[in-house]
Amino acid sequence: MEFELIEFIKNKITTDSSVVIGIGDDAAVMEIPQHQQLVVSTDTLNYGVHFDEKLSPNDVGYKSLAVNLSDLAAMGAAPKWCTLNLSLPELKQKWIEGFVSGFLDLAEKTRINLVGGDTTAGALSATVTVFGLVDSDKYLQRSTARKGDLIAVSGELGSAAYALKNPDSQLIKHLQKPLPRLDISERIKGFASSCIDISDGLASDLNHICKKSRVGAKVNVEHLPVHHEVKKNPNWMSYALSGGDDYQLCFTFAPKHLSQLPADCTVIGEIKCGKQADFYSNNEKIESLQKGYIHFNKA
Amino acid sequence: MEFELIEFIKNKITTDSSVVIGIGDDAAVMEIPQHQQLVVSTDTLNYGVHFDEKLSPNDVGYKSLAVNLSDLAAMGAAPKWCTLNLSLPELKQKWIEGFVSGFLDLAEKTRINLVGGDTTAGALSATVTVFGLVDSDKYLQRSTARKGDLIAVSGELGSAAYALKNPDSQLIKHLQKPLPRLDISERIKGFASSCIDISDGLASDLNHICKKSRVGAKVNVEHLPVHHEVKKNPNWMSYALSGGDDYQLCFTFAPKHLSQLPADCTVIGEIKCGKQADFYSNNEKIESLQKGYIHFNKA
Repeated sequence: MEFELIEFIKNKITTDSSVVIGIGDDAAVMEIPQHQQLVVSTDTLNYGVHFDEKLSPNDVGYKSLAVNLSDLAAMGAAPKWCTLNLSLPELKQKWIEGFVSGFLDLAEKTRINLVGGDTTAGALSATVTVFGLVDSDKYLQRSTARKGDLIAVSGELGSAAYALKNPDSQLIKHLQKPLPRLDISERIKGFASSCIDISDGLASDLNHICKKSRVGAKVNVEHLPVHHEVKKNPNWMSYALSGGDDYQLCFTFAPKHLSQLPADCTVIGEIKCGKQADFYSNNEKIESLQKGYIHFNKA
Repeated sequence: MEFELIEFIKNKITTDSSVVIGIGDDAAVMEIPQHQQLVVSTDTLNYGVHFDEKLSPNDVGYKSLAVNLSDLAAMGAAPKWCTLNLSLPELKQKWIEGFVSGFLDLAEKTRINLVGGDTTAGALSATVTVFGLVDSDKYLQRSTARKGDLIAVSGELGSAAYALKNPDSQLIKHLQKPLPRLDISERIKGFASSCIDISDGLASDLNHICKKSRVGAKVNVEHLPVHHEVKKNPNWMSYALSGGDDYQLCFTFAPKHLSQLPADCTVIGEIKCGKQADFYSNNEKIESLQKGYIHFNKA
């Protein structure tokens, strides 16, 4: 069962002038502006592993693109093109229409051009590859945090993990339709010293920055931005630090740039000498976090 | 089960200076030379659909890259970077090692840099995305064949399909390790008027050129390059015209360039007015091919 879903999508999309050859040839051809570098990220979402019936087809389509755009945001890159590989065990028209509509809604909002892909028989799975552009050598990375830098995060942490356990909460939208923070990326890329997107939880992802940058981090958990509904839950700290699926940005910057911090961002700590991220509550180190994770049932 | 196969592969690869940031950050960053365009192709191979136990893990790894490189060859593009998304139901070390070794063997031969990807739990599946470069506007495409052009193919047709039915044949290598014709692409890109890779069989793929270029084609089946072992089989014409999996190139060019035709290529017909590819034997049209396919059991 090979079929022309990509052609079906083609009729629903428009591409800008950067796409020289789009869907319908052996490969796509794109124009790269001078003095720009190409930034590429790819992720697979598999049924039964990354999503199940609880997520609507529209949400799966949206999320398959969103998780990749979040990676571009972490690099300070502007989204430009993407490809979609969709495997389907059978042709369920309604499921496909839902998926495509969720995918294209976000593609339109972020002005990313779908330029190719394939659709084939197989276990339900979506692989999306995104291509972004940055001005030459102006990308953000994990390995360049410096001692003395402040650490900030965008938005609120733990809402998606909380909603997973509390699906009736209004916070469910953070799980279903996580917003890739391209807006924040655009505003911090000029002064941030390092950046990562929070997909596995702050504790784990901040430790990636520490490990790659060969520094330590001190975070004050009282400063973590957490929605008031989550904060009422005894497990709020677990949700905020190791819940995952937040897709906010965690970044560092020299203190002199504090006035440039966007309104939706919060300073949560600073970069120190050391090898890992340490989390403090009332000036006391939370020992259960030493390994970079906490168990989900622990307050 | 998320695991660090990509890190495992990373230790086995080297990348050239075009890779600014490789595996290990949120995304990869690549340098694009001036006056070049980016060419992208992506394909998924699913267990039970595109391969099964009959294909060794080494062959699956090789083929997942080869089918994509074949698309770059069809565009006249030079391979440069690739990403690999691998889904695995369980961690079978031996299978993974075989896959990686087949993949990297071909990557090294074709000097393509692996720059990212992911590995995750899921039904056995490999998605490879390749990035190539062409001089600006010097790409080949399907839609530019012209009336009066000659039609040529590289290599021999039908060997893979024949080997699928005759696995003890020495031709099995064409099924297991199809050679993407980057060598031919490099030599014809300066004068070919259109090009496609033959993945579904010549009858089907030449019809793509006809449809996109709004022309017809007349092919003399006596001129088809077919291995002598295949030619002895009563079904040789089916293998050669609709067997698929050949990954040779089919291309068109103005007759004045005939002297530039590489040695491993054969002229099989010419582009005419019309809407489809017609196949002739002893000047008589083969009517069973009118729909662009022939059944596999038909001689």
